[in-house]
Amino acid sequence: MAAVSPKRSREAPARPSLSSLSISHGKRVRLWRLLYAHGPRNGTLLVLPLDQGLEHGPADFFPNPAALDTDFAFRLAVDGEYSAIALGIGLAEKYMRDYAGRIPLILKLSGKTNIPDDDEAVSPPNASVEDAVRLGADAVGYTLYVGSPRQGSEIRRLGRVRQECERLGMPLVLWSYPRGRAIEAKGGKGTLYAQDYAARVAEEVGADVVKLHEPEPANERCPEPYRSLREPAPERLRRVVRSAGKVLVLFSGGSKQDDDAAVLKKVRLYMDSGATGVMFGRNMWLRPFDRAVALTRQVHRIMAGYPA
Amino acid sequence: MAAVSPKRSREAPARPSLSSLSISHGKRVRLWRLLYAHGPRNGTLLVLPLDQGLEHGPADFFPNPAALDTDFAFRLAVDGEYSAIALGIGLAEKYMRDYAGRIPLILKLSGKTNIPDDDEAVSPPNASVEDAVRLGADAVGYTLYVGSPRQGSEIRRLGRVRQECERLGMPLVLWSYPRGRAIEAKGGKGTLYAQDYAARVAEEVGADVVKLHEPEPANERCPEPYRSLREPAPERLRRVVRSAGKVLVLFSGGSKQDDDAAVLKKVRLYMDSGATGVMFGRNMWLRPFDRAVALTRQVHRIMAGYPA
Amino acid sequence: MAAVSPKRSREAPARPSLSSLSISHGKRVRLWRLLYAHGPRNGTLLVLPLDQGLEHGPADFFPNPAALDTDFAFRLAVDGEYSAIALGIGLAEKYMRDYAGRIPLILKLSGKTNIPDDDEAVSPPNASVEDAVRLGADAVGYTLYVGSPRQGSEIRRLGRVRQECERLGMPLVLWSYPRGRAIEAKGGKGTLYAQDYAARVAEEVGADVVKLHEPEPANERCPEPYRSLREPAPERLRRVVRSAGKVLVLFSGGSKQDDDAAVLKKVRLYMDSGATGVMFGRNMWLRPFDRAVALTRQVHRIMAGYPA
Amino acid sequence: MAAVSPKRSREAPARPSLSSLSISHGKRVRLWRLLYAHGPRNGTLLVLPLDQGLEHGPADFFPNPAALDTDFAFRLAVDGEYSAIALGIGLAEKYMRDYAGRIPLILKLSGKTNIPDDDEAVSPPNASVEDAVRLGADAVGYTLYVGSPRQGSEIRRLGRVRQECERLGMPLVLWSYPRGRAIEAKGGKGTLYAQDYAARVAEEVGADVVKLHEPEPANERCPEPYRSLREPAPERLRRVVRSAGKVLVLFSGGSKQDDDAAVLKKVRLYMDSGATGVMFGRNMWLRPFDRAVALTRQVHRIMAGYPA
Amino acid sequence: MAAVSPKRSREAPARPSLSSLSISHGKRVRLWRLLYAHGPRNGTLLVLPLDQGLEHGPADFFPNPAALDTDFAFRLAVDGEYSAIALGIGLAEKYMRDYAGRIPLILKLSGKTNIPDDDEAVSPPNASVEDAVRLGADAVGYTLYVGSPRQGSEIRRLGRVRQECERLGMPLVLWSYPRGRAIEAKGGKGTLYAQDYAARVAEEVGADVVKLHEPEPANERCPEPYRSLREPAPERLRRVVRSAGKVLVLFSGGSKQDDDAAVLKKVRLYMDSGATGVMFGRNMWLRPFDRAVALTRQVHRIMAGYPA
Repeated sequence: MAAVSPKRSREAPARPSLSSLSISHGKRVRLWRLLYAHGPRNGTLLVLPLDQGLEHGPADFFPNPAALDTDFAFRLAVDGEYSAIALGIGLAEKYMRDYAGRIPLILKLSGKTNIPDDDEAVSPPNASVEDAVRLGADAVGYTLYVGSPRQGSEIRRLGRVRQECERLGMPLVLWSYPRGRAIEAKGGKGTLYAQDYAARVAEEVGADVVKLHEPEPANERCPEPYRSLREPAPERLRRVVRSAGKVLVLFSGGSKQDDDAAVLKKVRLYMDSGATGVMFGRNMWLRPFDRAVALTRQVHRIMAGYPA
Repeated sequence: MAAVSPKRSREAPARPSLSSLSISHGKRVRLWRLLYAHGPRNGTLLVLPLDQGLEHGPADFFPNPAALDTDFAFRLAVDGEYSAIALGIGLAEKYMRDYAGRIPLILKLSGKTNIPDDDEAVSPPNASVEDAVRLGADAVGYTLYVGSPRQGSEIRRLGRVRQECERLGMPLVLWSYPRGRAIEAKGGKGTLYAQDYAARVAEEVGADVVKLHEPEPANERCPEPYRSLREPAPERLRRVVRSAGKVLVLFSGGSKQDDDAAVLKKVRLYMDSGATGVMFGRNMWLRPFDRAVALTRQVHRIMAGYPA
Repeated sequence: MAAVSPKRSREAPARPSLSSLSISHGKRVRLWRLLYAHGPRNGTLLVLPLDQGLEHGPADFFPNPAALDTDFAFRLAVDGEYSAIALGIGLAEKYMRDYAGRIPLILKLSGKTNIPDDDEAVSPPNASVEDAVRLGADAVGYTLYVGSPRQGSEIRRLGRVRQECERLGMPLVLWSYPRGRAIEAKGGKGTLYAQDYAARVAEEVGADVVKLHEPEPANERCPEPYRSLREPAPERLRRVVRSAGKVLVLFSGGSKQDDDAAVLKKVRLYMDSGATGVMFGRNMWLRPFDRAVALTRQVHRIMAGYPA
Repeated sequence: MAAVSPKRSREAPARPSLSSLSISHGKRVRLWRLLYAHGPRNGTLLVLPLDQGLEHGPADFFPNPAALDTDFAFRLAVDGEYSAIALGIGLAEKYMRDYAGRIPLILKLSGKTNIPDDDEAVSPPNASVEDAVRLGADAVGYTLYVGSPRQGSEIRRLGRVRQECERLGMPLVLWSYPRGRAIEAKGGKGTLYAQDYAARVAEEVGADVVKLHEPEPANERCPEPYRSLREPAPERLRRVVRSAGKVLVLFSGGSKQDDDAAVLKKVRLYMDSGATGVMFGRNMWLRPFDRAVALTRQVHRIMAGYPA
Repeated sequence: MAAVSPKRSREAPARPSLSSLSISHGKRVRLWRLLYAHGPRNGTLLVLPLDQGLEHGPADFFPNPAALDTDFAFRLAVDGEYSAIALGIGLAEKYMRDYAGRIPLILKLSGKTNIPDDDEAVSPPNASVEDAVRLGADAVGYTLYVGSPRQGSEIRRLGRVRQECERLGMPLVLWSYPRGRAIEAKGGKGTLYAQDYAARVAEEVGADVVKLHEPEPANERCPEPYRSLREPAPERLRRVVRSAGKVLVLFSGGSKQDDDAAVLKKVRLYMDSGATGVMFGRNMWLRPFDRAVALTRQVHRIMAGYPA
């Protein structure tokens, strides 16, 4: 039985180890591949996401047109020895053939364009867990817009996907994203309030891994007790990692930063917080190929310092 | 055949006994476990709920950060000899392994965040009765937002869950919660009008156990005859217990009270009303572990005085 | 082949006889039980409904608290030799055991609270025709809110229930209730216009039995030709019975009347109109038990005068 | 291969012959019965619809109360040797027994009341193609509200019914009715613009037979090129028949005309336009029985002049 | 493994070859038929669409009434040796018999009228992939209204169709059409921003072939970086072809142009951009038959210059 100790928000929460998780054989096999057979191979995760083409449109590739070609990301994932590449059904079907077995796939099942506003955001599935099995994926990705006015159907649909994951032994990586009119009224999607809630929701709905954003300080529109909370960035990060409980946390790299050192500093900050890994997309594939590989190697060096 | 006697609201209604209920074998076996093999073991129920992380967010754990770790609640449930712990699929999957068999599980199938307002409240299912069976649960929990403008789909969905419960012999514990714009216009969710209606709805839709809140006096926005009713707290409680008919009633502890004596007084008040038990969450797990266990033991002493 | 004679609204329409109905064996067996093995046993129907706890809340029982206990209604139905008791799944599951075989059950499959307004009324099912079969019911009840802005989904759902009834040989009793914003704009739910339309809709959608309300005179908001129609109560009743065609008509007793004679007069009025029977709830179970039984016996004496 | 000739709107389009249609065996057998074994028996159709009781309410029968009794229409259909009677599930179930085999049935699967306005009109199904098979029907009828703001779900649902028709060899008769807020803004449901579009939609969605209304001239709210079109009635009729392509066209008789000659003139006008037949309801069953039969015989004499 | 080279928007992207696509056997067989057994037979596509009767109504045929007869388009497709004809279920069922085997079919599964406005555009399916298999089609067509406020259900439904295509080996041709209130607010459906996003979405959701429109320059309502982009037409075309990745691109001919030379110039422009082909409807079938065939032959001559 786990010991219960009074934890203070100052200490980094312990990263959940694969062996400590009570998951099915299939999930364990697949997570093991992500954690120990690929990427840093020490129980951490370094994931390359490529869902921005659907979520934001081709505009995201303007700074580096070469990356519009999905092969760019696949080659980067292979050469950079990522733990997995995360993308949707269309890209997976069309580009995976040449990389099969060389880089694990997180098949992103849901997604949308950013053309309509996010007031009542929903992230519709366009692929299934069975698609993921058929493609040899090692996990599925799914976006939950936490707190959206349409959370009713969003949560129900996620529930069905979770059940399929259970049935088929497929790890569930949740993009747990606060979104919608109501979260805007309560301070916005990026605040500690929003990210902390999103972390807990991921655990509550049965995610195995959660993708979160680095939490900004709460603002005056946030509800109490967050509104009055004054915590520095590391503490905010540890707080949301702790709220995710036994869910492995990945922090997002967010929009592109030109300064390599800043990116690496972020990695250290994230890993120090107890996160299991990072998901860096634009900060990688918007760099020229060789510089992206080089930066990735530096990230590897950092992550080597965080064995499970 | 049951005798029909003119009941006056002054007398406490008789608590339904397990043997008097016409339920399937499977439900009877599972309810027996809750009523006689765990908890006070005398036909009463002492349930520890932990659905607040989803319903209210991590904010609820701020007064006692240790409780953010679900092991805290599991250990409390085991050490405090609760009848059951009630929580959602994510927590059940992740934390039950170490406590399997030692504390019955009420798997809460539905839930939502409190980020959007409750004007058109819905409580979407994210797990199924089959999940509960797979996890070895002894009951499922489900929230019905009584009187919500979206009661149409809420009631239909509950109907399907009830049928699954029937098919699989799984007791149905209903969080029967008045909610939404219309109930606000009629005095609010906490009034005797609202709670009394919620109690009856639980019986009508086929719940086995219902979780209610202690009813507040009616106010001037409540419809007649409630508006004119002047009844003291014990009578109000007995009234809603009576309206629940053969459904076992659990009263909620509500938000945290620091005064132990006040909590114990509430337990007595509830049990005197004919309730089958209490569901105390924050009033327990927001206390330091040892004090929570100690308070639980005092509750046990009280409940021992209410054998079936 | 049926003869076609020019009917005038002055004559009472002939009551459809069981043998004249073209229904499946299963429906015939079950309707026979209602019409000839229970109640007046002469082809008329005397039904005791108890769906008010869900539809109106416990408030309906305030004038006679004893009736809050469902055993009251069951005992009244048995002692009063009703044709059937009509109630929902929760009450049926919990209270039927002691009365099995002694009183036929009409399982009401749909229902709602009256907390939100009826502008876009829907009556969601919370039980199925298979539930009714499992419980040994002799008919199912279903509410259709005729003319509701949401008639689209209401009618579709009813269609599915009708098909199940066909498949399982279960008579379908339709609570055909004009309701919603649009009917209010056209004079309200109680007018001859509304009730006449509701009667026809019951026949069109395939009901076997329909519950209607005594039609009030049309008012100036009703469409023509109803607006200009001046017909006394008996003629109005005959008109809606005629519009129901081969559907057996039950008229509702409506809210409670203290005057026994007035109740009995109503029964005669209804039966004279060609109705097959009456459905008296609050007018019965809001009376003290013995007076309710006594009044029921008087109703029996009247109905004995209307053999098939 | 069909010859392509430049058609001018002055010539009547050729009526599609049964042998020229590429339909399944089942559809061919059933259409043959309608076209050659009943009614005029020369490849034309004379259909008696009785869906007005649901669509408009009992008010439609006020001018001829005898017709409220569905036997009136069945007898008229048999004595008048109609090609088929078209009505809903409730009437079919209750009245067909005495006429089985003597008059083909078009089972109308969808319908609604006219109590709410038609701004967002939908026509929900309340019966299935399997119901039609079970009842020995020779076709199903279905209403599509062309151009309704809710065309999304309307078209999808129709697609499923069409697939069932394909599977079961059941001809699909489409009530192709322009309806809703948007069509009102574009000149209304009766204009040439609206009816012409409705005719084409019927062909596009896979109807076998379509019921249309005689098109009125376009008005200034109609879109171009219709707005500027000045065509006499015969040309307008030919235009919509041509737009229906290989779908057999039935024109509706619309509301009642007292003048027999006017009715007969309409029949000639319709048949001259290339229509396959007429669907006359109120113009028939609102007449006294013998006069309705007599008028029908005159219609037969006209239709005899339009062999396939 | 594909080479990654820094591509500049000045160069035409390489057209994906059939052999380079990782698709199932069934899809490959069917695409081969379209690319090499029909039409230009050199890996390019020349498709004749006829969905305008549903999408725009019969008005589209006014300039050439002969084309209202679907045989016109079928004969043109055969005589003009098109790669395929693209039309809906009703037309396919009714007219294909005489042309079976002589012209491949792209069965358009979804469609709608243009009567309501496009603010919340949806394109409902009215046929299934199984219909396409039954009819011997070589591909299905489906419309996705990219960026519609109702993209939630649109994307989900498309996902199910895609899965059926996968299961049955049926190529998926996506009409990827920016549409709805939100895209209007961002510059309109025809801009480079809109078309470029639509191209990428087609790849992301798993289309095999995409139909796009020639992109207009961005306007000031378009988001950055498009707003500031100044690219000539050929560059804009290449940009969207590149964004479509491995999806074969067809450009639409749009509304009719009288000048043959202009049409041919467009074909060259499109093919130069790396597109796989063109989809010319009104520009063909609104011409007299012989002139349409003649123009088609000229198109063939151009396309012969673009072998795979």
